[in-house]
Amino acid sequence: MLTRIDHVGIACRNLAERISFYESAFGLTVVSREVNQEQGVREAMLHVADGPAGSSYIQLLEPLAPDTPVGRFLARRGEGVHHIGYGVPDLRRALAALSADGVQLIDERPRHGSMGAAVAFLHPSGMGGVLTELVQAPAP
Amino acid sequence: MLTRIDHVGIACRNLAERISFYESAFGLTVVSREVNQEQGVREAMLHVADGPAGSSYIQLLEPLAPDTPVGRFLARRGEGVHHIGYGVPDLRRALAALSADGVQLIDERPRHGSMGAAVAFLHPSGMGGVLTELVQAPAP
Repeated sequence: MLTRIDHVGIACRNLAERISFYESAFGLTVVSREVNQEQGVREAMLHVADGPAGSSYIQLLEPLAPDTPVGRFLARRGEGVHHIGYGVPDLRRALAALSADGVQLIDERPRHGSMGAAVAFLHPSGMGGVLTELVQAPAP
Repeated sequence: MLTRIDHVGIACRNLAERISFYESAFGLTVVSREVNQEQGVREAMLHVADGPAGSSYIQLLEPLAPDTPVGRFLARRGEGVHHIGYGVPDLRRALAALSADGVQLIDERPRHGSMGAAVAFLHPSGMGGVLTELVQAPAP
């Protein structure tokens, strides 16, 4: 079902500073910047690698306001890994299979993710404490 | 410097149960089980994907005792993502470059990681709260 580690989602207080750090220390390049009002975040995707099933990224997330999921995460846990995103070839099929298997979904249906992808989140309480995102990249 | 997301390291209280979950829900396969006395963990690597620079894994970690890094992590934060591992082609060169750039290292020199890899950890306080591991896979 999983074709790759699509991205590591990292919550930070200052997106510009965190981007600069990854650029200078690791030589990574920002390939997308977006504001996702629905999720309440300003974000940047830094390209790590290409693979046969798609690319892998570090996704840096800065909350648009304290009263957002990432804002509350920062208040509760501080900066750090917020979620892990895995690639799937068919998101609707993956959600149906996981739901049938008793895995607790946050999103019953795909919604809009980074760079045109369809995404859905799985609840961390059913995932051993890991907020998990499934990502179906847009058709090329 | 980074060639891939090598693995996501996930701390859990019961390794066997967590393996079963990832096997049944996601169809993943365990490719390695090890006890790392130096790091105080019992671990399993589940294969996610292959790429041009190496494979990607989910690494499940169960502490050997409460008074270990992962044991203390579980007591403090509960189950969840413990660290992120990135592939590098030359670990000694990467550590030298990061150190020269002022990035705070936990390991000044490579040590033994999973499946014969050489690894080194970077301090989360210099990494925006993310415990970060660099992984040089063993020569084929």
